Order: sequence, then structure tokens, then C-alpha cells
Amino acid sequence: ADIEAGKAKAAVCAGCHGANGISAIPTYPNLAGQKAAYLVSSMKAYKAQERTGGQAPVMYGMVAALSDADIENLAAYFESLGN
Amino acid sequence: ADIEAGKAKAAVCAGCHGANGISAIPTYPNLAGQKAAYLVSSMKAYKAQERTGGQAPVMYGMVAALSDADIENLAAYFESLGN
Repeated sequence: ADIEAGKAKAAVCAGCHGANGISAIPTYPNLAGQKAAYLVSSMKAYKAQERTGGQAPVMYGMVAALSDADIENLAAYFESLGN
Repeated sequence: ADIEAGKAKAAVCAGCHGANGISAIPTYPNLAGQKAAYLVSSMKAYKAQERTGGQAPVMYGMVAALSDADIENLAAYFESLGN
């Protein structure tokens, strides 16, 4: 995965998940240092709308336009923020 | 929330999420330092089966017997592991 490409793609995520992957909003998860494989499965779950309720629908819009490569790059980028 | 009670309750979680909240399995999320409010909403989403696909059904069994207080205590405990 391409962490730099992930970083570029992550600009829009910062609004809720924080510029450094630590969210300022308690109901939004921190992403920094999270397992990349888990982040991939979460983003794909939102994309497939397998998660409903709460803030899930907000994420549908966020991931709708992401390709699998984008998702891999974003996941690698956020995991790298934990190191 | 009662972090000590959460810690006692978390024994069963360690198998997948790691004894210190850092999971050894890349598709399972780290919980250490995660936002407590997000953990509460996630556990409740699994309890209400609002999350489907992937490993979600594994979590149904894990949270089925948890009370709201258990969920609050667990969330506070795992958030505290990040400090």
C-alpha cells in the first residue's frame, strides 16, 4: 500500500477523525495506529452498507467514491500514525 | 464508569483484542486508547446486530449478555489503556 497516497486521500477524514488520526469527537473513533486490515474491513463494511445505525450513514458518503486501492492506502496511512 | 469492573469483564475480550487491548490478529481492532463513547456505540451496534458481514456475528455472542453498565465499564477500561 502507498502511505503517501493514503495521506493525500485522508485530508477529508481529518474533519472527524483528527489531522493526526486522533478524533476530537468522542463518538468518532481514533484511527491512528489501528490495524490496517481492520480499517480495510471497516471501510468496506460501510461501502457495502453492512453497518447501520448511529453515524454509519455518514460514512457511506465518505467511502462511496473510494477504490480498493484508496482503501488500502488510507488504512496503511492511519496504521502508520500509531508507530 | 467503573474501570476496575471493566477490567474484570474484559478477560474474555483478551483472546482476540489482546491482554493490553492491542490485538494480535490484524483483522481485529486494537481497543487500547480508543474513544470510550465510540466503543459504547460499537458494542451497542453489535448488540442490536446493526453491524453485519465479516466478523460481526462473532461479536453478537460476545456482547449479548452485557448490560449497559458492563458496556460503559468496558469502554472506560479500554480507553484507559491508551493513557
